[in-house]
Amino acid sequence: MIFRQFFDNISSTYTYVISSGQGREALIIDPVLEKVDQYIKLLNELDLKLVKVIDTHIHADHVSGIGELRKKTKCITLMGERAPADIVSMYVKDNEKIQIEKIELKTLYTPGHTDDSYSFLMNDRVFTGDTLLIKGTGRTDFQNGDPYDSYNSIFERLLKLPEDTLIYPAHDYKGENVSTIGEEKKFNPRLQVSSAEEYASIMNNLNLSSPEMMDIAIPKNIFPRMKYE
Amino acid sequence: MIFRQFFDNISSTYTYVISSGQGREALIIDPVLEKVDQYIKLLNELDLKLVKVIDTHIHADHVSGIGELRKKTKCITLMGERAPADIVSMYVKDNEKIQIEKIELKTLYTPGHTDDSYSFLMNDRVFTGDTLLIKGTGRTDFQNGDPYDSYNSIFERLLKLPEDTLIYPAHDYKGENVSTIGEEKKFNPRLQVSSAEEYASIMNNLNLSSPEMMDIAIPKNIFPRMKYE
Repeated sequence: MIFRQFFDNISSTYTYVISSGQGREALIIDPVLEKVDQYIKLLNELDLKLVKVIDTHIHADHVSGIGELRKKTKCITLMGERAPADIVSMYVKDNEKIQIEKIELKTLYTPGHTDDSYSFLMNDRVFTGDTLLIKGTGRTDFQNGDPYDSYNSIFERLLKLPEDTLIYPAHDYKGENVSTIGEEKKFNPRLQVSSAEEYASIMNNLNLSSPEMMDIAIPKNIFPRMKYE
Repeated sequence: MIFRQFFDNISSTYTYVISSGQGREALIIDPVLEKVDQYIKLLNELDLKLVKVIDTHIHADHVSGIGELRKKTKCITLMGERAPADIVSMYVKDNEKIQIEKIELKTLYTPGHTDDSYSFLMNDRVFTGDTLLIKGTGRTDFQNGDPYDSYNSIFERLLKLPEDTLIYPAHDYKGENVSTIGEEKKFNPRLQVSSAEEYASIMNNLNLSSPEMMDIAIPKNIFPRMKYE
């Protein structure tokens, strides 16, 4: 299997390029606009046919590369059905299966960071977007975020996966590249709570400033066909 | 297997934490001083016993964490026999095997970036230090670097490994996390040469400035027991 994790050091975003092998179909999760040419270079070198690109949710901290990838490769653009992006060609529901050659992902609706946040389970690993981060969780204070939804998504869905499931998030800010469900259950400081109320109280008191890119990124990611410049 | 790739965004260094599983022995390659506490936190969470730390060569761009890890965990500090560091407790020769529980690395002497540069082969992957980078090669203009040695190390040793061998380098500056021997052979721009002379001419004309940390990092990495502050 080809499994590449790209890092965008401006927004600390992780992007995943996945394929069953050279010369075969490929899938990209959470691409960043500025790095699209780099992904395409790799696709060409490995002779991969990009068939699907996924955004786990409408990002507020970077402009998504899904529109540009669609323009350049005619790939399918895929998001969960709650995402309002007009660039999406294939919407998926909770528990729906997504396939490319020899690879299957299961969609998990995991709102909380935003109400359009989805995770994607692929055998031994799960792509958690901003819902569950390595020793952190996605903020819940904009884009219809809700700490109670986040609690349910994490405790009732993600943490019920087998403990050795690998977690590949959409971001990391401390230079770590992967974690597991077991580790997050035991050591994620935000998850050492005894109730949804306690978790919500942590999340409601983070006092974070807005992402710098937010006012540019959200409208561009929702309506990428419009001109913003 | 546990396989973690840490990224230090100051020096763009990759560090590897490897173990056959939770509760077992661990090995770290190319640790960065400032991140030692983060590695130790992970070792504790996964209940790993650190038995060996390796530096692929004397680094010029960051202060190594091997001394601090030895101080804190009593691990073995390991480098190739050509490395002058006084903190090393175990020197290895070319082709020597290094073992921790269920894991074996083979030492490959790959000078060129420096004259103490070694790579370490572990089944399907090779840790190339700064000898072979993703679509690049380590500069050869200090610490007894030599472009002809670099050419030989890359062409006569590393590129003779099976094409699907994964390459895990000590650095990447463009957000890519892994490559393969096959990809580097075909697409690394510095390796599309027809002779050692042509490669040496590329390397001798890079006109790079010295690493910012060089005057601090090299002496600290060679004589870590001395006081520099």
